[in-house]
Amino acid sequence: MSPKIIEPGCTLGIVGGGQLGRMIALAAAECGLKVHVYGPDADSPAFDVAASITCSAYDDAEALARFAAGVDVVTYEFENIPRETADLLARHAPLHPSAAALATTQDRLSEKDFINRLGIPTAPFRAVDTPDDFGRALDAIGRPAVLKTRRFGYDGKGQRIIRTEADADRNAIFAEFGGAALILEGFVAFEREVSVVAARAADGSFAAFDLCENEHRDHILAVTRVPAPGIAPETAREAVGIAKTIADALDYVGVLAVEMFLVREADGTERLVVNEIAPRVHNSGHWTIEGAATSQFSQHVRAVCGWPLGDPSRTGGLRVEMQNLIGGEVAAWMALLAEPGAHLHLYGKGEARPGRKMGHVTRLIA
Amino acid sequence: MSPKIIEPGCTLGIVGGGQLGRMIALAAAECGLKVHVYGPDADSPAFDVAASITCSAYDDAEALARFAAGVDVVTYEFENIPRETADLLARHAPLHPSAAALATTQDRLSEKDFINRLGIPTAPFRAVDTPDDFGRALDAIGRPAVLKTRRFGYDGKGQRIIRTEADADRNAIFAEFGGAALILEGFVAFEREVSVVAARAADGSFAAFDLCENEHRDHILAVTRVPAPGIAPETAREAVGIAKTIADALDYVGVLAVEMFLVREADGTERLVVNEIAPRVHNSGHWTIEGAATSQFSQHVRAVCGWPLGDPSRTGGLRVEMQNLIGGEVAAWMALLAEPGAHLHLYGKGEARPGRKMGHVTRLIA
Repeated sequence: MSPKIIEPGCTLGIVGGGQLGRMIALAAAECGLKVHVYGPDADSPAFDVAASITCSAYDDAEALARFAAGVDVVTYEFENIPRETADLLARHAPLHPSAAALATTQDRLSEKDFINRLGIPTAPFRAVDTPDDFGRALDAIGRPAVLKTRRFGYDGKGQRIIRTEADADRNAIFAEFGGAALILEGFVAFEREVSVVAARAADGSFAAFDLCENEHRDHILAVTRVPAPGIAPETAREAVGIAKTIADALDYVGVLAVEMFLVREADGTERLVVNEIAPRVHNSGHWTIEGAATSQFSQHVRAVCGWPLGDPSRTGGLRVEMQNLIGGEVAAWMALLAEPGAHLHLYGKGEARPGRKMGHVTRLIA
Repeated sequence: MSPKIIEPGCTLGIVGGGQLGRMIALAAAECGLKVHVYGPDADSPAFDVAASITCSAYDDAEALARFAAGVDVVTYEFENIPRETADLLARHAPLHPSAAALATTQDRLSEKDFINRLGIPTAPFRAVDTPDDFGRALDAIGRPAVLKTRRFGYDGKGQRIIRTEADADRNAIFAEFGGAALILEGFVAFEREVSVVAARAADGSFAAFDLCENEHRDHILAVTRVPAPGIAPETAREAVGIAKTIADALDYVGVLAVEMFLVREADGTERLVVNEIAPRVHNSGHWTIEGAATSQFSQHVRAVCGWPLGDPSRTGGLRVEMQNLIGGEVAAWMALLAEPGAHLHLYGKGEARPGRKMGHVTRLIA
């Protein structure tokens, strides 16, 4: 496919007004693009750095059509927008990543089916649409297992670990999810969580950032370390190969993240299991702002605008550590500003509620 | 003076909507500040990245008062705003740099008087208010000399070189300037033009970026090289010392640039002559976005917000070259995006008129 080239001075539409949209907007502005942000919340962080904003719901067909018709290309900062919304946008402007890529990856069931069909391992899984399904799935997968909503989950929301028989009062647990479509996933006994953040352009060119190790606390990303320590180079190459296979199969345009588990067998062998695909810029790629020659946000803008991808190599070959500032942790902002070599990013959010991502700090380590 | 500390979430007011205001705004957003830009032109580049804008003239007292009263701190991106405007703003909000620093540096006569009183050399100069003054000044200074407007000049505008006797039809030349207050400056036979970009905080702390060499074409900055090549380390240290003396004497808060001529005597001795002070972020500091641990824009935001100054050292100790994209040069944007290691910045300006600064590109050189 020959990509449409968006020229500087044109307008990039971003659906979603959170910190990811904000950082995409900042990267777009650096290259002379105008930005129009569409989001439902009046106090969206991305609104503050956009040339134009539309504050409306994700199912407001009229507002969406007006938004898309007024921009030169559309992207999105998160995968939980309805497929119908994506299709509507795509009728009025080029949409990257595509509605098809979004649909495949925003549903845990279609996502895992897709990954397995590529010959890439995931945790075992079963669709759960009824309490009976749940029972059969538990029998097949065993415990521990994780029951998840198929869509709209993030940061551990919409998940429940099933550990013991007592947990498995199937009807009650099933009812807790309020009738949402579910998936039961086997528990992977992993040593580390890693991710590949990479970009693919419409002409098929591909550029991956170095493999990241991700440390979660309370299901929320706490720290990303790059390059992922203690992992064999051939495993890191395999991880990048998996991301490329996925991006190619999706005919993907933009930045995506592939989260994986690293499993270490008794004999020391390393094995990768894909956890999920994020069809967007990703928290585990924030380190690239200072830590790579091209940031994931600039890279995403390049890809969706039909521009050549940038150099993803690490700045000066240094190790990088990115620490999220969650909730009250942001109170340390002044000390972080004073810390030599620390790069502070704050998202302009109001209240520092528990679990809320307020900012991050990146350290380059000589 | 104990500085007022501006917290993230507060609003930074920026007077002036050009590329400098735009890059200050982007740096402020990175730290979670909201930005309100005030400027007279509807198509101001900085408007596109600001949470709020006021489009009005620099002498609209009512709009200025409303603007300043609605923000937590005010700064400006260029020195050609009237002193009265600065005083008015300062009555409603903290203003950094101060109106006094602005007044001293925006007039070439008071600026050179001030610098000489600090014991720092400048070119010889004389005030020229009448054709007779002009004659006496030429007799005192000799030729070649440069007749300049005392205020509102930039990029060589408002200047005329006086080389020969024939040039010196005093009444005619004087009349060309239409009655503006003038200054005649002696011509300095310099080897290189250099600049120090540095920040001073309200608590007196000071941080200078490495000495820059600046190459001009048609009176417009074309290329900045850092560190300035072919200059003795003690001369570079002296240049930073001069900038610190000036910043201290102005009780300066924010980033300033001091442009200097490097004169090489017949015996090889290096001598510095101050050309002018820019009370603001400066084109010769654009390289700091990728080339230094803290950019001049972040540094300026830190200083005006009462935050600790950041580390000004060069990224990985690499050499840096910044090239302005003037007028039609911006047409090469796609090739620059494709150039490995080149960092492209475009300012979102419309028409690429001759002499107009459309963007810049920074290269880190291993």
